[in-house]
Amino acid sequence: MDLSIVAGSANRPLAAAIAQQLGVALTPCLIERFPDGELHLALQESVRGRDVYLIQPSSPPVHDHLLELLLLADACRRAGAGRLTAVMPYLGYARQDRRAGGREAVGARLVATLLAASGLQRVVAVDLHSPALEGFFDVPLEHLSAVPLLAEAARPWVTADSVVVAPDLGAVRLAERYAGLLHLPVAVVHKVRMSGAAVRVRGITGEVRGRAPLIVDDMISTGATVEAAIATLLAAGCRPEIGLVASHALLVEDAVERLLAQPLRRVAATDSVLEPPGQRLPLQVVGLRALLAAAIERLHTNRSLSDLLAYA
Amino acid sequence: MDLSIVAGSANRPLAAAIAQQLGVALTPCLIERFPDGELHLALQESVRGRDVYLIQPSSPPVHDHLLELLLLADACRRAGAGRLTAVMPYLGYARQDRRAGGREAVGARLVATLLAASGLQRVVAVDLHSPALEGFFDVPLEHLSAVPLLAEAARPWVTADSVVVAPDLGAVRLAERYAGLLHLPVAVVHKVRMSGAAVRVRGITGEVRGRAPLIVDDMISTGATVEAAIATLLAAGCRPEIGLVASHALLVEDAVERLLAQPLRRVAATDSVLEPPGQRLPLQVVGLRALLAAAIERLHTNRSLSDLLAYA
Amino acid sequence: MDLSIVAGSANRPLAAAIAQQLGVALTPCLIERFPDGELHLALQESVRGRDVYLIQPSSPPVHDHLLELLLLADACRRAGAGRLTAVMPYLGYARQDRRAGGREAVGARLVATLLAASGLQRVVAVDLHSPALEGFFDVPLEHLSAVPLLAEAARPWVTADSVVVAPDLGAVRLAERYAGLLHLPVAVVHKVRMSGAAVRVRGITGEVRGRAPLIVDDMISTGATVEAAIATLLAAGCRPEIGLVASHALLVEDAVERLLAQPLRRVAATDSVLEPPGQRLPLQVVGLRALLAAAIERLHTNRSLSDLLAYA
Amino acid sequence: MDLSIVAGSANRPLAAAIAQQLGVALTPCLIERFPDGELHLALQESVRGRDVYLIQPSSPPVHDHLLELLLLADACRRAGAGRLTAVMPYLGYARQDRRAGGREAVGARLVATLLAASGLQRVVAVDLHSPALEGFFDVPLEHLSAVPLLAEAARPWVTADSVVVAPDLGAVRLAERYAGLLHLPVAVVHKVRMSGAAVRVRGITGEVRGRAPLIVDDMISTGATVEAAIATLLAAGCRPEIGLVASHALLVEDAVERLLAQPLRRVAATDSVLEPPGQRLPLQVVGLRALLAAAIERLHTNRSLSDLLAYA
Amino acid sequence: MDLSIVAGSANRPLAAAIAQQLGVALTPCLIERFPDGELHLALQESVRGRDVYLIQPSSPPVHDHLLELLLLADACRRAGAGRLTAVMPYLGYARQDRRAGGREAVGARLVATLLAASGLQRVVAVDLHSPALEGFFDVPLEHLSAVPLLAEAARPWVTADSVVVAPDLGAVRLAERYAGLLHLPVAVVHKVRMSGAAVRVRGITGEVRGRAPLIVDDMISTGATVEAAIATLLAAGCRPEIGLVASHALLVEDAVERLLAQPLRRVAATDSVLEPPGQRLPLQVVGLRALLAAAIERLHTNRSLSDLLAYA
Amino acid sequence: MDLSIVAGSANRPLAAAIAQQLGVALTPCLIERFPDGELHLALQESVRGRDVYLIQPSSPPVHDHLLELLLLADACRRAGAGRLTAVMPYLGYARQDRRAGGREAVGARLVATLLAASGLQRVVAVDLHSPALEGFFDVPLEHLSAVPLLAEAARPWVTADSVVVAPDLGAVRLAERYAGLLHLPVAVVHKVRMSGAAVRVRGITGEVRGRAPLIVDDMISTGATVEAAIATLLAAGCRPEIGLVASHALLVEDAVERLLAQPLRRVAATDSVLEPPGQRLPLQVVGLRALLAAAIERLHTNRSLSDLLAYA
Repeated sequence: MDLSIVAGSANRPLAAAIAQQLGVALTPCLIERFPDGELHLALQESVRGRDVYLIQPSSPPVHDHLLELLLLADACRRAGAGRLTAVMPYLGYARQDRRAGGREAVGARLVATLLAASGLQRVVAVDLHSPALEGFFDVPLEHLSAVPLLAEAARPWVTADSVVVAPDLGAVRLAERYAGLLHLPVAVVHKVRMSGAAVRVRGITGEVRGRAPLIVDDMISTGATVEAAIATLLAAGCRPEIGLVASHALLVEDAVERLLAQPLRRVAATDSVLEPPGQRLPLQVVGLRALLAAAIERLHTNRSLSDLLAYA
Repeated sequence: MDLSIVAGSANRPLAAAIAQQLGVALTPCLIERFPDGELHLALQESVRGRDVYLIQPSSPPVHDHLLELLLLADACRRAGAGRLTAVMPYLGYARQDRRAGGREAVGARLVATLLAASGLQRVVAVDLHSPALEGFFDVPLEHLSAVPLLAEAARPWVTADSVVVAPDLGAVRLAERYAGLLHLPVAVVHKVRMSGAAVRVRGITGEVRGRAPLIVDDMISTGATVEAAIATLLAAGCRPEIGLVASHALLVEDAVERLLAQPLRRVAATDSVLEPPGQRLPLQVVGLRALLAAAIERLHTNRSLSDLLAYA
Repeated sequence: MDLSIVAGSANRPLAAAIAQQLGVALTPCLIERFPDGELHLALQESVRGRDVYLIQPSSPPVHDHLLELLLLADACRRAGAGRLTAVMPYLGYARQDRRAGGREAVGARLVATLLAASGLQRVVAVDLHSPALEGFFDVPLEHLSAVPLLAEAARPWVTADSVVVAPDLGAVRLAERYAGLLHLPVAVVHKVRMSGAAVRVRGITGEVRGRAPLIVDDMISTGATVEAAIATLLAAGCRPEIGLVASHALLVEDAVERLLAQPLRRVAATDSVLEPPGQRLPLQVVGLRALLAAAIERLHTNRSLSDLLAYA
Repeated sequence: MDLSIVAGSANRPLAAAIAQQLGVALTPCLIERFPDGELHLALQESVRGRDVYLIQPSSPPVHDHLLELLLLADACRRAGAGRLTAVMPYLGYARQDRRAGGREAVGARLVATLLAASGLQRVVAVDLHSPALEGFFDVPLEHLSAVPLLAEAARPWVTADSVVVAPDLGAVRLAERYAGLLHLPVAVVHKVRMSGAAVRVRGITGEVRGRAPLIVDDMISTGATVEAAIATLLAAGCRPEIGLVASHALLVEDAVERLLAQPLRRVAATDSVLEPPGQRLPLQVVGLRALLAAAIERLHTNRSLSDLLAYA
Repeated sequence: MDLSIVAGSANRPLAAAIAQQLGVALTPCLIERFPDGELHLALQESVRGRDVYLIQPSSPPVHDHLLELLLLADACRRAGAGRLTAVMPYLGYARQDRRAGGREAVGARLVATLLAASGLQRVVAVDLHSPALEGFFDVPLEHLSAVPLLAEAARPWVTADSVVVAPDLGAVRLAERYAGLLHLPVAVVHKVRMSGAAVRVRGITGEVRGRAPLIVDDMISTGATVEAAIATLLAAGCRPEIGLVASHALLVEDAVERLLAQPLRRVAATDSVLEPPGQRLPLQVVGLRALLAAAIERLHTNRSLSDLLAYA
Repeated sequence: MDLSIVAGSANRPLAAAIAQQLGVALTPCLIERFPDGELHLALQESVRGRDVYLIQPSSPPVHDHLLELLLLADACRRAGAGRLTAVMPYLGYARQDRRAGGREAVGARLVATLLAASGLQRVVAVDLHSPALEGFFDVPLEHLSAVPLLAEAARPWVTADSVVVAPDLGAVRLAERYAGLLHLPVAVVHKVRMSGAAVRVRGITGEVRGRAPLIVDDMISTGATVEAAIATLLAAGCRPEIGLVASHALLVEDAVERLLAQPLRRVAATDSVLEPPGQRLPLQVVGLRALLAAAIERLHTNRSLSDLLAYA
């Protein structure tokens, strides 16, 4: 089974880099938008019997990118693809993994169901919001991690008095992983009921006074969580030399402005989603090209990718 | 089983009108868009054990409206809805009903598959692009027709020397139905190879000279088909008093300007999709409120709706 | 994966020809009919792990041939076939692709559902009644076309004053394809409401006076459509030297007699269905052997078959 | 949910009798056969939201009757039937319940799969060839028994010196049930290896000398099994006053002639399949009307039908 | 649809209490264990057309209880149950919700898949290990909470200087809910990397010195987590008057001895699983009878149960 | 695709023997039991893209072994196994293949459904209780037979005056197969109604007086059937030199004591299930190692295994 790499329109530069790394050309694929917004797509080369990898994060605009991926899968399936894998460096709707109130959708499960309904046989994702998402998928989900790459990127920034900071409780396991790689202690910013009153305030677990924080999270969306964490850290006496590392830099709304207003020395994130235009952040982009190319190559040649997985 | 009407955001005025006609309140439903474009929705009232009708055309922006419908279906299903029907006055992707070239998606089938995957048990649609779409759906599809309503709207416009015109071959069966209701002859504009040369030109079957054309189609998208048909009709000597009737007025891109440049006396269409802002067309909107309310009421009370169907 | 060709009983000569062309022997297969009409079948050779192609049109008697195909698929699947493709040169029930009245079955969808339920993973068909049938199938459908072969067969018959004739509106796209290959103009016979009266009469679009018609259609069933078209053509002054080309020669009921009564010079059709006994028509049979063998070989070796497809 | 009874064409008299017993009219249903053998059917009355029972044995011609049932199910499902049950007084392909050699189909499972694929939600059957067929169906199968009715029919024939005879090993459990109801002993005719030689001959277990045999079986197909059993019984000294009872009288090929040549005093069978024309047997037909009407009424009103089931 | 309550053998006292509360008798059901350990079960009363609730936690021995539930579902489904809901006060395998290493099963998803495969249409659970489990189920999952009941039980124990303690990070959200109901502050015991060294030690967030801890968790399995938390709390100077509240008291292995060795004043848990024999703990059992009876009654009568759900 | 053999814990010695025969190492796999009885398993080597055979009889404790198999399948599937086959030398729940009374489960079908739901694509079994079980499985079931091996083992025991004995009617076909291989006659012990009275007593068909019986059955569970058959045989004057051959030696409860009390000269059975401890029977174990290794090798290399199948 030969290898084919097909790029959706959500992150063509990353797809092109992966293909180059793998030494293959991207399968040419026409993707048009009709005047009414419907997509029309046509593969320009045969994928019959091939091992096809569709590179498409479901980043914003999430619905357009998701439907495009589903249409690509349908086209590949009908064109006789031998094996069909979606490579989704960023998986949207991952935070809707439960009904927080009543009578809501479980968006992450719906997305998993739609992906399988389109004929995809396997999904590759990077640093999911929650590892439990694996159980939402009936098809195998390969959950890769960019944490080792990002930790390497941050290594030059840290000193003996740095501290890895989880900006909320959901990021504690992630912080532990960074701390283990960088040999640093961990602190946690979290909202907790400090007295019997109804108010929940942000407190910090762990020592931050006089230390330089390295805030880590799975994604930066509007930057509000980071903003609040920094305020808490500063109030607790941390050094105003703060680093920020996240796998996915969505940077929606006024996230860039919000982050520019912080004493952020450095920011690192992967290229899982396209950079927003007019980026003025001190952002170091860590390319996923090598990681994803390695994962695809091993999947294609049926070799283990355990050491690339998020639980490794 | 009690009746619940839930409105998506694609056409709330129509949903509200239907609910009013049925004498029920719309089930309150919160639909938020997060900063990253993901939708969050929550039904504000119980639908447990109820017969739920989701009113949502998949009109542009088609992907947003489609995902919203799928999320609504998931929410209703998990909230214990007794029966779950999508009422889609306009069904997007209906024209992608085959692979026109090679290696394309069959978009209409994909949409049908996704709708079923979300838990919808039945779909109600109006004047589909092709009646064969019924076979794309595994769940029952009730294919209603607004043609009788539109024909009534056009009746005052026509005289003894009017002629119903199909602007292309795909609209011939539709033209026949209008002609039967209005007791008029039919003419067909179509591209056909008139000689052995490779060129296909528009010709007309039927008599149009000196007659006032009533052009009929299932939808008006960019208006280009209508524009070309009118040019052909005028060249063939028709009277420059042209009427236009279509079920769905998408009017995307510069459709309004294009139509305003034609000798169109009157246009009639349903309110299956929201009117675009700044409408300056002589457009008579034929409300679907009564038709859809009647269909829902009969489905809810398990009475026949044969006389409302497109094949009636 | 090695290649296996299994023949049902619907068209064994064609299956044998295909196998010979491919240089393989038909997989011996016992097909018995029990006294009560039930079929019993047993493959006489292993198909374990093989790429199996079942050659079986669902031609009349359609139910017997369809069940036989489903039973063959079940037998192959349970015997460990590696990949299972039905090659159906003629697909029955294709005209029941919608509910024409109310409360009917959508026969074509039911057949598609049954084929998938039996374990078939892919279907190859030839000149379907409607290209939209592709959307009825969840498994990939390869829609081949015999039109280029049939046009070659008809090429010696045509002269500069020939005209390709679609005997009804459903055949217009087909006529266009023949006309393009033969560099001829097109005319269309169709029923249309010529006045406001309820009557629909057959008229002709395009020039036929003094021309020699070449009638084209996807199938000849009872011959009634062709008979009516010829009457209309003759009344319009065509030359009484008429050719007839169709992909599928079902020729049921008194079709042969009916056609013999016409001024038909020549008829061409494929061998998708077995010839009826006592054939006395001037019928030129265009063998599908090479087309189907090429399609199977390319599918088997995972090469593109775009240029064999109906939309090519 | 109101009750609807729809009759296929396989046994309309039985369907009419059931409907009469239930005090409802058969739902009018047009069933046409097109010239090419395809069926076209249309329900003439609404079944929307109704509890629909399709009466159709899959008796010979089994493929025609089976496809008709599947098409009826599809039509009812798309027409909005609330609940859909197939009542199959005789179930064809029931004997193909295993692969007897290699590389065969498991026909009974295929039929069960097709029935479910058509949308049927429940199947009612009578005296199946094997009770294990229940496990072939994913939908609930109600396995009714006509044995009590047939035993009543045979009661006047038997005397103190009668013996119930199973004509082969497969009928032993059935014979036990008859014997229990009629207070008679059982004998079994079966082929068994009586010595080390390869030959298997028919022997008899139990006392038959001087007794009047009542042969019982689930169906009479060609009559060959009965013929052989009678020869064995006579050779063993039974009285030449033989009765024969079977649930299903297929009587295919020359079964009638074969049975007429035997010393059969009386034959009893149900009307599960239509009687073959020219019946000259001393056949007492035991109507299934009351049994099936009772089963339908209880299913319709959700009452237990345990005492009607085959294992009762 | 009438109501039926069927009890598996995992917790018959609770099932009986629920039925009594609902004013119905348990549907008698024979559950035998064959000598080889296989279960045989038979409902002794009809459930045809009824709204059936199967009461069965998948508590230890988890495989026996799970298979019994699946067999009960199969039996009810085949016996014509109108609607089929599993009420699982405790859901086993809930902690296997991800692949922690490589090449593991996702046990929670497998269980969800098996439950749906058996025909269950809805699951009711209480205080799941993780709310994300909802997304593992394709059928609706009603996630009830016993937290309000348990908080009421603990209310008499607490004073102004009590503190709610989460014994690990996974219990923080649960602790917040208890704290909100009891108007108490929260403290968290968690393992965290306190320095750059590889060792992770237990620390405490929040004030516990001089306070009386109320430890809360979703389940008590071996008691080891509680034991470790208490050691940490005591070392941090808490008062040795400790309360313990958990939804599920599995108490496997030497959990009882382990807990008896602690300065536990009081323990509260629900009766979701049967009490282990020889219970000597100061255990206050909070009955789920009223909660589950209310949930069943509302589901049965299609009323909202939002205020009973875990996210309320 | 390379071969991987994974052993569950139900019969590791057999799995090891099979792997040795095939010249491969067992894929190391950690199988732990948590204190609450839940299983945790982790494959220690990659199975990505491999042809995986899971060796696991569902012998007692049947529920533990079945769930372990399902978890193993889930783990292999998610780890990217290329093809996934369960090798179940003994298949539990096989006797629950029908509803014997009313409102029971069809346990064998449930097991088949669960196996498919876990992602298994094929099942290999040995000497099933009934060949009709094949139809319960949607995935292909390869039904192997150990009868030839067991007959070889018994050949030294038999003399010209031996007789093969089926201890009940269900074993007659099996007895015929042994008799054919050993050139012996057959006798059948069965309960039958010998008079009109309600009592059913055991009788014998065939000659046993003065002969040495070789009792054959598919499995020995408690030994009660064998015990009763021996009593009947002795009463009928057989020689007290009795042999016993069965495919599966479950030997539950006091089976060993019961058999030791009989005049059994020799017993032969396969090692499909682990021997119970303290075995004191004159039991000759016939290893399945070669049979199962041959089947796996042929499946792996896509060669026919017809001659190994039970119907051969």
